Amino acid sequence: MSKFWSTIVRNLVPYVPGEQPKDKKYIKLNTNENPYPPSPRVLEAIKKAANGDLRLYPDPEFHELRDTVAKYYGLSREEVYAGNGSDELLAFSFQAFFEPGKKIIFPDITYSFYPVYCKLYNLDYETVPLDDEFNVPVNDFLRENGGIIISNPKAPTAKYMGLDEIRSIVEYNKDSVVIIDEAYIDFGGESAVKLIKDYNNLLVIQTMSKSRCLAGLRLGLVMGSKELIDGIIRIKNSFNSYPVDRLALAGAVEAIRDEEYFRETVNKIINTREWVAIKLKELGFYVLESKANFLFISHSKINAEVLFNHLRENGILVRFFKKPRIDNFLRVTIGTDSEMEEFVRVVKMLEF
Amino acid sequence: MSKFWSTIVRNLVPYVPGEQPKDKKYIKLNTNENPYPPSPRVLEAIKKAANGDLRLYPDPEFHELRDTVAKYYGLSREEVYAGNGSDELLAFSFQAFFEPGKKIIFPDITYSFYPVYCKLYNLDYETVPLDDEFNVPVNDFLRENGGIIISNPKAPTAKYMGLDEIRSIVEYNKDSVVIIDEAYIDFGGESAVKLIKDYNNLLVIQTMSKSRCLAGLRLGLVMGSKELIDGIIRIKNSFNSYPVDRLALAGAVEAIRDEEYFRETVNKIINTREWVAIKLKELGFYVLESKANFLFISHSKINAEVLFNHLRENGILVRFFKKPRIDNFLRVTIGTDSEMEEFVRVVKMLEF
Repeated sequence: MSKFWSTIVRNLVPYVPGEQPKDKKYIKLNTNENPYPPSPRVLEAIKKAANGDLRLYPDPEFHELRDTVAKYYGLSREEVYAGNGSDELLAFSFQAFFEPGKKIIFPDITYSFYPVYCKLYNLDYETVPLDDEFNVPVNDFLRENGGIIISNPKAPTAKYMGLDEIRSIVEYNKDSVVIIDEAYIDFGGESAVKLIKDYNNLLVIQTMSKSRCLAGLRLGLVMGSKELIDGIIRIKNSFNSYPVDRLALAGAVEAIRDEEYFRETVNKIINTREWVAIKLKELGFYVLESKANFLFISHSKINAEVLFNHLRENGILVRFFKKPRIDNFLRVTIGTDSEMEEFVRVVKMLEF
Repeated sequence: MSKFWSTIVRNLVPYVPGEQPKDKKYIKLNTNENPYPPSPRVLEAIKKAANGDLRLYPDPEFHELRDTVAKYYGLSREEVYAGNGSDELLAFSFQAFFEPGKKIIFPDITYSFYPVYCKLYNLDYETVPLDDEFNVPVNDFLRENGGIIISNPKAPTAKYMGLDEIRSIVEYNKDSVVIIDEAYIDFGGESAVKLIKDYNNLLVIQTMSKSRCLAGLRLGLVMGSKELIDGIIRIKNSFNSYPVDRLALAGAVEAIRDEEYFRETVNKIINTREWVAIKLKELGFYVLESKANFLFISHSKINAEVLFNHLRENGILVRFFKKPRIDNFLRVTIGTDSEMEEFVRVVKMLEF
């Protein structure tokens, strides 16, 4: 604690990302990265952009990228914006649409960055308990609130809720902004982007870190009505004129355009996920149905932390959250087939 | 205005960056970019980093970059941090060290982003009038305040204040944080970084956008006591775990290491600046002494806005601020020798 820190800083409980140890080579199944490299076309576009023009500021309004995404989703440029990872866009959205004193609501088990943003912007919140199978109780979101945020598929459970359920939440809450955080939507879910034309209070946030294999490039996308996007733009232009660099813009455009590589990569991960889920169930694991690039698993006979440490000792990193309700679960990112074969092999070393 | 906007968003007056028109090819002397490309070693490092590892998150703590900068300035890793451009680090600093209700102070003529940050974080401020020659009246900063920020060399005047003056401000204000924004320090000034070991309330912010020719890469640096850097880290980790991407980290490390290219480029710009200043003075211009990569100029017989438009019509962009006290000045970025010869030629088309 320093006497120079503002009240905000003193009260913060910063987010802790998954570990990135450098002591040895691990099979990294702990931060939901994609096991496949980005599209060769993306790498080519970045290399081409690594030229003398880097002396110049990037386009502060991301026109080419926004047009590319708009075309992809059947939206207009005014309904699309970009940011330095979806985390930045989430932060902007919390500040733009939520008001101190008006409680926002989100599920009790969710992306652990949401309460952090609340501290950062002095926002109040209330959590809605998920049911025993980690489903969102839709009715509990049909009540007065200062805003709603739900990840879908949900972090860290991988569970997916259908568009009908999302529609009913957005429909009921016409006076507050509903944010759907779709970091994992491409792994089998249907995006709420198609509801944007019907609801001016719906904001959809996505990332290129997972399905587009670009965690290292920092590129987030946000889609919504023009008035919501304008709110984001006002915050962004009061924070940093150029949050997305020239190389990220060049790579991101190409990542959207290379639909074939995208589909191929996503399908590989889905296929791997499905056989791993079956294997784990055969071993007696409780495996939540996943529409994401990870599995959320638990076993009645082996403590999650014990399994976590066993995996780590054998060169495999997964994510363990020491939190109420989920402290006997592990979140396991889907790697390549051979990485997951090794994962299953190491799991089997334990006696069940 | 939208009913969904928070009070903060409603009250914002976002910063407007210099224009980036695409209608034709201009000589761009309006956003203080460097006219020379980044070091070939930087471009090489970026191309090398454009590989499959982009699927992985970057180092959230920027260890290699921080170690490189720490070594360069004789600091420790704990006294250095990085961000997505110096604008992001300025924003983090305003939120980390300034408190609503306690007036911060800065010069009346300064980087126009400072009052924007105040709106963004609900901060109160008071401006201190510069004297008639745009010097900082040091004594006016020796009084109670909630924090101080001064750019040095100053935006948009290019005027420089010596370390003795900065030391007396930092020395007097031991209970508040003094931020020195050194975006232009490499063009002839002496960095306040060397005062950090004596003062735990001093924060120095720099950028790679100007002297390192990397405006398109988005890389800012901040140096200060461990307790101040820890405050920045707490904000950053509550906002975005990975604000600097893998390519920017790779390029930035090499930009610091290639001292020879850096010196050569900076010296070329200083030399060009000096002959352009002489030429303009010969034409009767009032040219403020500059230690930056731009000149702040005025002419008693030609209105600045008229000259601005004349230059624009002839394919040259400069910056005109329609603001009290400086609305008869133009800010002219130093380009290459041939760009500046063209600039002088076009200026001479007018009759004085």
